[in-house]
Amino acid sequence: MKEIKGNIASPKGFTADAIHAELKFQKLDLGVILSEVPAVVAGVFTTNKVTAAPVQLDKAVVAEGVAQAIIVNSAIANAVTGEEGLNNAQKTQRLLAEKFELNKSHVAVCSTGVIGKQLPMDKIALGISKLSAKNGHIDGFAEAILTTDTVKKEVVYEVEIGGQTVTIAGVCKGSGMIHPNMATMLAFITTDVKIDQALLQKMLSEVIETTFNQITVDGDTSTNDTVLVLANGLAENAEITDENSADYATFKAVLAQICQTLAKKIAADGEGATKLIEVNVTGAPDELSARMIAKQIVGSSLVKTAIFGADPNWGRVISAIGQVAPFEVSDIELEIQGDLVLLHSTPVDFDQAELSEKLKKKVVVIDAELNTGDKTGTAWGCDLTYKYVEINALYHS
Amino acid sequence: MKEIKGNIASPKGFTADAIHAELKFQKLDLGVILSEVPAVVAGVFTTNKVTAAPVQLDKAVVAEGVAQAIIVNSAIANAVTGEEGLNNAQKTQRLLAEKFELNKSHVAVCSTGVIGKQLPMDKIALGISKLSAKNGHIDGFAEAILTTDTVKKEVVYEVEIGGQTVTIAGVCKGSGMIHPNMATMLAFITTDVKIDQALLQKMLSEVIETTFNQITVDGDTSTNDTVLVLANGLAENAEITDENSADYATFKAVLAQICQTLAKKIAADGEGATKLIEVNVTGAPDELSARMIAKQIVGSSLVKTAIFGADPNWGRVISAIGQVAPFEVSDIELEIQGDLVLLHSTPVDFDQAELSEKLKKKVVVIDAELNTGDKTGTAWGCDLTYKYVEINALYHS
Repeated sequence: MKEIKGNIASPKGFTADAIHAELKFQKLDLGVILSEVPAVVAGVFTTNKVTAAPVQLDKAVVAEGVAQAIIVNSAIANAVTGEEGLNNAQKTQRLLAEKFELNKSHVAVCSTGVIGKQLPMDKIALGISKLSAKNGHIDGFAEAILTTDTVKKEVVYEVEIGGQTVTIAGVCKGSGMIHPNMATMLAFITTDVKIDQALLQKMLSEVIETTFNQITVDGDTSTNDTVLVLANGLAENAEITDENSADYATFKAVLAQICQTLAKKIAADGEGATKLIEVNVTGAPDELSARMIAKQIVGSSLVKTAIFGADPNWGRVISAIGQVAPFEVSDIELEIQGDLVLLHSTPVDFDQAELSEKLKKKVVVIDAELNTGDKTGTAWGCDLTYKYVEINALYHS
Repeated sequence: MKEIKGNIASPKGFTADAIHAELKFQKLDLGVILSEVPAVVAGVFTTNKVTAAPVQLDKAVVAEGVAQAIIVNSAIANAVTGEEGLNNAQKTQRLLAEKFELNKSHVAVCSTGVIGKQLPMDKIALGISKLSAKNGHIDGFAEAILTTDTVKKEVVYEVEIGGQTVTIAGVCKGSGMIHPNMATMLAFITTDVKIDQALLQKMLSEVIETTFNQITVDGDTSTNDTVLVLANGLAENAEITDENSADYATFKAVLAQICQTLAKKIAADGEGATKLIEVNVTGAPDELSARMIAKQIVGSSLVKTAIFGADPNWGRVISAIGQVAPFEVSDIELEIQGDLVLLHSTPVDFDQAELSEKLKKKVVVIDAELNTGDKTGTAWGCDLTYKYVEINALYHS
């Protein structure tokens, strides 16, 4: 596989557009992804029991397994909006289907932004009427879905599958919060690979566990989190129908790479973040524990503030391990930025000033070997800063 | 029951002392609680798999069920200190037993402070030699156990049990962090009540669930958390031996009141806190869920920052509910500082400016009615402030 330049419309048969529908003050706020032909679709959604209206609608789309468009607005989350909110999501779906002459049930709808506010349907309708399937503002899509994100987040890969070049592209937003609300993660992946829908869903559900589910910014799960993959088959590879095939493995590896890259971009752009933190746990008896421990470390407010302060505070790291390890931990080996700080769960002399200097880099890596097995897990997050408090305390709802 | 003035030595037969053993730069850092006679003892400890040396030792004391003294040092946690740390905890226990001619196994040892550093045993030994059972600096005890706490935390109650006046006193520290480490909670309760040891342990374990276990400052569980109750029987009430008796119920109510008061004091004095937050969840199908949901709300970084900013951000509250509710939540009624903001899970008009003004008070109360049952739960925490980040980022290890 190799990374290439491109965008969400790089895979064959996809296009995109983005406009300013006056939901935000000035910026792009309404975007669409379109496929020339119906694509198989897989999706994963927030586990929050309070789900936004569009999430409820998209679950039905994914259950049927086919999609041809995704319409996304930022600024308003359409969450906790009751019956009216659900009607608005359905109306958005219908308007987009009419505009591009699609089957209504093939249109996914996503929203991100303020909770508890209704969508201004006149603006949405006018916006949809302006969207185009030709010569659209493709590059604008990645921008139109942002809230308090500070950068666009895109990645595109190419890979050979069954003698054909397959392209797979991903775009996401996350960790942004529009008052009065919360971090929402949206990720969309387009590809021209030909693959069985059930296999794509299975693959996505597995890949999510080690990528998007392993990032944390503030421990809160949004009402709107959504990941959708559209595969339209236009690469004309022999359809992937066997999960034990080499093609399946190859495509899964690229999907995992895309999801991991996007997940890390979200973590690095966490609210107020100055640093990306990566935690690798090795030597665990099972993968679930390894991932859970890695996520606990990277999510600990004490670890996050220490890293903001460039403090090699290993005590907070091993305390985080001890909080969630479902087994005894008495032989921990800990490295921070490659420097050994703990061996056999006993402090080791290290150059505090030198390590503190290394902690000023933009990426901080913590490696914890638990010596209780051979399973591993990784998680990503960011530091906890004054800016995080400012963003979340001072911008009123 | 009534609250009275006093201290940890108010119950009959107890005394205390505190000195400066040069573990801290200037402040009191070594304290002792002593009972004239052996007392039954109950205890609960951190669930962190990485437990400090003294915790391991105290578990053995509680298992035997009798204690006559608690020796506590601040500044150094004696955690992650290996074999040497355990030897030092045992030596501390032995030295105190020799000094006051006690059975060694009747001495509990507690430490709080820096992780990964050995106790300076010469200073501890010298300090113990200076401690006194007569005319000691009783009021100093509550101060000697503090780390980054900003205030002493004590409470004393009196209650009639079996015709006798029983006194019960509590003291604690918490939410303080000494670099390079973490919030540790220590609480000690003395009483002259006569009660069966097994019943006292059962009562304490139950009371903890709705009090100390329902506070959160930053979601981290320390390696040293300890709660100990010593009951020496000198009030000469008829021994409480029946958990269905009125005396048991009366004493449990006072113990719960003491634990709740101490827990709230810890939450209010959380690192960098400007406000105490109380969350009451009602209408849940079971108590465990109610408590879990209350704790999730009060522990949410988004809720905590909103309250710091005096922002009535109900979206963050119901999102927190949705994250952990093990049942459907579709009919939530939410009040913030007594103002209704959500009814039937639908936003209600309220005076934003007026409510924001109310959120500037030192105590913020959030009431969430879930309308799915009749069980309740309460949790306490504090806001997340610039000061929290400063305390935890800028004081280096």
